[in-house]
Amino acid sequence: MIESIIYKDNKITLLDQTLLPIEEKYISIPDYRTMIEAIKKLRIRGAPAIGIAAAWGIYLAAEEFKDSPDWKEKLEEAISEIEASRPTAVNLFKASGEIKVLLAISDYADCFTETVRDYALKLMEYEKNASVMMGVNGLEEISDNAVNIMTICNTGSLATYGEGTALAVIRALAEKRDITVYACETRPLLQGSRLTMWELMRSGIESRLITDGMTGSIIRDKAIDCIVTGADRIAANGDSANKIGTFNLAVLANHFNIPFYIAAPESTFDRSIKTGAEINIEQRDAEEVKFVRGTQIAPADCKVENPAFDVTPFELITGIITEKKVYKNPDEIHKA
Amino acid sequence: MIESIIYKDNKITLLDQTLLPIEEKYISIPDYRTMIEAIKKLRIRGAPAIGIAAAWGIYLAAEEFKDSPDWKEKLEEAISEIEASRPTAVNLFKASGEIKVLLAISDYADCFTETVRDYALKLMEYEKNASVMMGVNGLEEISDNAVNIMTICNTGSLATYGEGTALAVIRALAEKRDITVYACETRPLLQGSRLTMWELMRSGIESRLITDGMTGSIIRDKAIDCIVTGADRIAANGDSANKIGTFNLAVLANHFNIPFYIAAPESTFDRSIKTGAEINIEQRDAEEVKFVRGTQIAPADCKVENPAFDVTPFELITGIITEKKVYKNPDEIHKA
Repeated sequence: MIESIIYKDNKITLLDQTLLPIEEKYISIPDYRTMIEAIKKLRIRGAPAIGIAAAWGIYLAAEEFKDSPDWKEKLEEAISEIEASRPTAVNLFKASGEIKVLLAISDYADCFTETVRDYALKLMEYEKNASVMMGVNGLEEISDNAVNIMTICNTGSLATYGEGTALAVIRALAEKRDITVYACETRPLLQGSRLTMWELMRSGIESRLITDGMTGSIIRDKAIDCIVTGADRIAANGDSANKIGTFNLAVLANHFNIPFYIAAPESTFDRSIKTGAEINIEQRDAEEVKFVRGTQIAPADCKVENPAFDVTPFELITGIITEKKVYKNPDEIHKA
Repeated sequence: MIESIIYKDNKITLLDQTLLPIEEKYISIPDYRTMIEAIKKLRIRGAPAIGIAAAWGIYLAAEEFKDSPDWKEKLEEAISEIEASRPTAVNLFKASGEIKVLLAISDYADCFTETVRDYALKLMEYEKNASVMMGVNGLEEISDNAVNIMTICNTGSLATYGEGTALAVIRALAEKRDITVYACETRPLLQGSRLTMWELMRSGIESRLITDGMTGSIIRDKAIDCIVTGADRIAANGDSANKIGTFNLAVLANHFNIPFYIAAPESTFDRSIKTGAEINIEQRDAEEVKFVRGTQIAPADCKVENPAFDVTPFELITGIITEKKVYKNPDEIHKA
């Protein structure tokens, strides 16, 4: 298993995903500020992985401030800074929110620091098991005849801790039969070409890289059987925010009448949000569009739109595959 | 007006579009082999411009071989090589086909050379006037309320000789009212970000660059009023091959119930082809996907799909805007 983040000998390292696939380099995260920088710069990304990174970030802050008389205030501030690093993935806020509850009832800095470490370790364990169960549930749900699968962004081991989300489902399918995965490159930051293709090739799963504009004609010409993607935040009605480009795939799946699945852990549900319209979509820097890994591809002073995510309404989603079950109507999400 | 190709003092130069927008450099085309290389490498591209480039390529071959005893055989061979440079745009074959008819009845190499030069000059003049008329017809057709327009690839002065095709329509709209153009970057070769944004900014038309995966959410969130694209070959039933990514736009327009227009000169019709299924789609090199202008963005040995075009069925097209009229049903195309 590729480990997106490692806790060993009380030190945290993570695989710098901005360097992949050219370079596989683990970098040391000595303090919470470095963790914030890593999250912002997408050295670690993927909704579940960001949740884990946030927990370890808070642990690092707790370690740093535990001998200070105003450790609680300092920690609260550090947590706020961590929460401001990326707005869309709910997993970050879920982890920080739960840790804040623990902090509120903690009287001793030392004990709290231990508690946060245990929380982070358990979260990793939970996400690892959840990814296995997403694979199990996805395999049961998806037709035995599905052999050509399309996906977007990276939803594998790099995006979580374990097998992944959508990629866990795809791995489960690949264990049962020969499949071919068509991976969208996922501009602007190319998580598909850089990370998903790297993971699929490592796992020996037959794969083809395509650009994001090829999706419609590839679905038609290569007889794509189903589309599986991840999610960064799912509203109570099932509307799902995921990497920009996902909504296009859902519309195309609908046009061709093929199933479109979301695979995400239960932690991705945000039942405090009624519909997708309320999801805060992160707008990222224009340079990400105007430059590809340092190479200029547009007039330097041109105006750019750069929403990092889009929202797919639940009516375009065949089912949301979690570690518990496959949700097929919004009422189940409410009740669960 | 930006000139994609220039004939002056019996010399041909063209603006090397692979260097834009970083560098504006006209390169000399001394012989037909250099023209073939320029077409293959996309130094000149865009269906109408390729037709013009082919005509000038044949002229250069005629100049080269006119004193040879077997000038006709040599020319026929050169024309075959030129025809093999890019398979999808019909304009190339239309120009070469018409010139071959002239060649068949020509007895004198000198006269033929003059004839080809006149043919090329007239073709430039024709495309220039056609682009103006596409603008006129597009302006009449498109709703007066349309202010947010989406387009893909480059269909401007660079893609033809004159105002362009889809961009001629967009220019005509921009002369009448304030519009905002959302240009898809158009991976893999980024004609949208490199060429269209450059042309729009030069023309002072308000514009935003987006990646190809953003199209669905931008149509929804920015209230796009209509989509206008070019075409490389249009079958007798109206099915249209255009730059990869166009079909996605047509499906999205259909989903949102907004008009989707093709703008192309009459020369883009290929009535010898019944439906889009018969159109030969150029598959280009995998390196174009794995590298962005020299920068590696995927595992070096990954497998890639790289169709340069896709086919949009006529039922998803609101109308085909040409220099003559706006075609709204396939019967009109047959009859015209």
